[in-house]
Amino acid sequence: MAFSFSVLAEDGAARAGKMVTARGEIETPCFMPVGSAGSVKAMTPEELRTVGAQVVLANTYHLMLRPGAETIEKLGGLHRFMGWNGPILTDSGGFQVYSLARLCRLEEEGVEFRSHLDGSLHRLSPERAMELQGRLGSDMAMVLDDCPPLPSPPSRFLEAVTRSVAWARRSRAAARPEQAVFGIVQGGLDRSLRKRCLEELMQIGFDGYALGGLSVGESPGERDELTAALAPAMPADRPRYLMGVGTPEDLVNSAAAGVDLFDCVIPTRNARNGQLFTSRGKVAIKHARYAEDGGPLDPACDCYVCRTYSRAYLRHLYTAGEILASRLNTWHNLHYYQGLMRGMREAVRAGRMQSFRREFLSRPKETDG
Amino acid sequence: MAFSFSVLAEDGAARAGKMVTARGEIETPCFMPVGSAGSVKAMTPEELRTVGAQVVLANTYHLMLRPGAETIEKLGGLHRFMGWNGPILTDSGGFQVYSLARLCRLEEEGVEFRSHLDGSLHRLSPERAMELQGRLGSDMAMVLDDCPPLPSPPSRFLEAVTRSVAWARRSRAAARPEQAVFGIVQGGLDRSLRKRCLEELMQIGFDGYALGGLSVGESPGERDELTAALAPAMPADRPRYLMGVGTPEDLVNSAAAGVDLFDCVIPTRNARNGQLFTSRGKVAIKHARYAEDGGPLDPACDCYVCRTYSRAYLRHLYTAGEILASRLNTWHNLHYYQGLMRGMREAVRAGRMQSFRREFLSRPKETDG
Repeated sequence: MAFSFSVLAEDGAARAGKMVTARGEIETPCFMPVGSAGSVKAMTPEELRTVGAQVVLANTYHLMLRPGAETIEKLGGLHRFMGWNGPILTDSGGFQVYSLARLCRLEEEGVEFRSHLDGSLHRLSPERAMELQGRLGSDMAMVLDDCPPLPSPPSRFLEAVTRSVAWARRSRAAARPEQAVFGIVQGGLDRSLRKRCLEELMQIGFDGYALGGLSVGESPGERDELTAALAPAMPADRPRYLMGVGTPEDLVNSAAAGVDLFDCVIPTRNARNGQLFTSRGKVAIKHARYAEDGGPLDPACDCYVCRTYSRAYLRHLYTAGEILASRLNTWHNLHYYQGLMRGMREAVRAGRMQSFRREFLSRPKETDG
Repeated sequence: MAFSFSVLAEDGAARAGKMVTARGEIETPCFMPVGSAGSVKAMTPEELRTVGAQVVLANTYHLMLRPGAETIEKLGGLHRFMGWNGPILTDSGGFQVYSLARLCRLEEEGVEFRSHLDGSLHRLSPERAMELQGRLGSDMAMVLDDCPPLPSPPSRFLEAVTRSVAWARRSRAAARPEQAVFGIVQGGLDRSLRKRCLEELMQIGFDGYALGGLSVGESPGERDELTAALAPAMPADRPRYLMGVGTPEDLVNSAAAGVDLFDCVIPTRNARNGQLFTSRGKVAIKHARYAEDGGPLDPACDCYVCRTYSRAYLRHLYTAGEILASRLNTWHNLHYYQGLMRGMREAVRAGRMQSFRREFLSRPKETDG
């Protein structure tokens, strides 16, 4: 398997590293845009490259239901299907089963659920999750885990950890040799339970380790504390992946705590809802104050959108419901996220991650209240 | 005013020509993509260039309501607002007043209508229509006309011609000197009434002449017959513009009859609805037969979409409601339309327009019934 990870620089708990896959290198800390159904919404693969994306996440749940992993395999795999020749990480499908589908049965063998699209009945087991990801042909695959919402009773988290470890072992055994496999730490907000889960996963041995079961109801503060406690306990020579997180502030705090890999729908989904990230804080582009504003969205940004269009035009497109609004807003937000990650990589290498973080967190949060 | 038109080649009634504007040359026969609200839906200006668009049409009605012509003028005009530095043709707003808004009053002074967006009351007169287009800063402006639906009683068409000529005179007088102005021939399907209207417009004198009041209820055959009868009667040394038309077949028939300029929402709107134009006929991309079809949409097409993606992926994007579906489908359809126009320009210059037309019309219309 052509997968390796090396830490190139450390600064406190933060690291700057490099993942090598058969489809290219990934500099960390790294943010993965989410291409749920085989498309990072509103973007072409070429545009993803332009904004600096190195790797894309795709959701096994969405793709297994439509168009089907078998169909994608027949068509030459997910890379070819979606026209993205860089690395792809797939999740196991588990998270969407818990959050989006109607869960029918959860037992040792696996889960049974009904599709949110048409109510059809499906099953997912550790073996099936790995088979699906193998058919998709992703470069990095995630084990199937049991992911309870927060809050849940302590006994539920204990059960989830026991099950997740057992499923991780089965997932690892079922993985295709050409895919890197990440284990997922569960355990809610209970640090000792999380650490127990992590240790059991480390005994199985994975190519990378993820913190799962977050962004499911906890506060940002709770998440930050847990991440700061857990990340340094994760193997130093393996990539650390904080799943489904988060805001720019989350990324800075978590990278400072030693996390290497992130994914989140925030930059893309918020873009479609007209919420834009800038060096001066968040901009709600629909705001009437931008109606005659001929300036760029972010004067400090050098992306295509900020070089080409005015706030007034972006507001107009959004107000008129134009498809181009989603395109331009997504382009800018992803460029912002990728620029933030690049800034952190440079800060870690230069030994100034703490001042980077301090300055970042003291910036204005909102430009328009 | 930097506007001129010259016929470079003739072949039967068909012509290949060149319009020169302050913002660039336009080779004719030419198809103008429709950018209703200051955006050709789902496309960037750079992509429009890539597919071969030379000029864009924008709708005064949509822009006067949102964001307002005064706002666009303050922001430096429509070209700068939408990031398109090539020529722009604006309509007068009249057509949408008749087709989209709620018409409240139609009298000699002008029309009063309620916005389809919020019911607000607005007025449009020949002078106001030219003022709005002047503020937008388009390179070619259209006179305000009276455009009855088909069918309407003969007296209504007679009234429309009388009013349209009077309004054309007032529009011409109110135009900014830097804009080319096109007169619009009305008169329904009555050829002698149409010719009377044309002659009166020619006495006023315009930079170009348009056939209006079509695509409003007549059959393609009726439209073709009228166009074939009228186009040759229009001044040979001025561009002839068939407004709001049409299908690929319409374009070929009308260009063969001597029309130089076209606009229509068909390639863009149909794209968003999953109807794609190919060298083998129309493709309804949602069709299940494409679910595992790894081939390009049109093997004879060299556009980005056909070079990069499979029918199966295009079907998946459409079925999943992905924004990228609208993008790729629009890209391909506009490329197809521009390629068709280029083919006709070459055919006219080579003296083989009749065989081009014959071959085109004998091609399969539908690949999937």
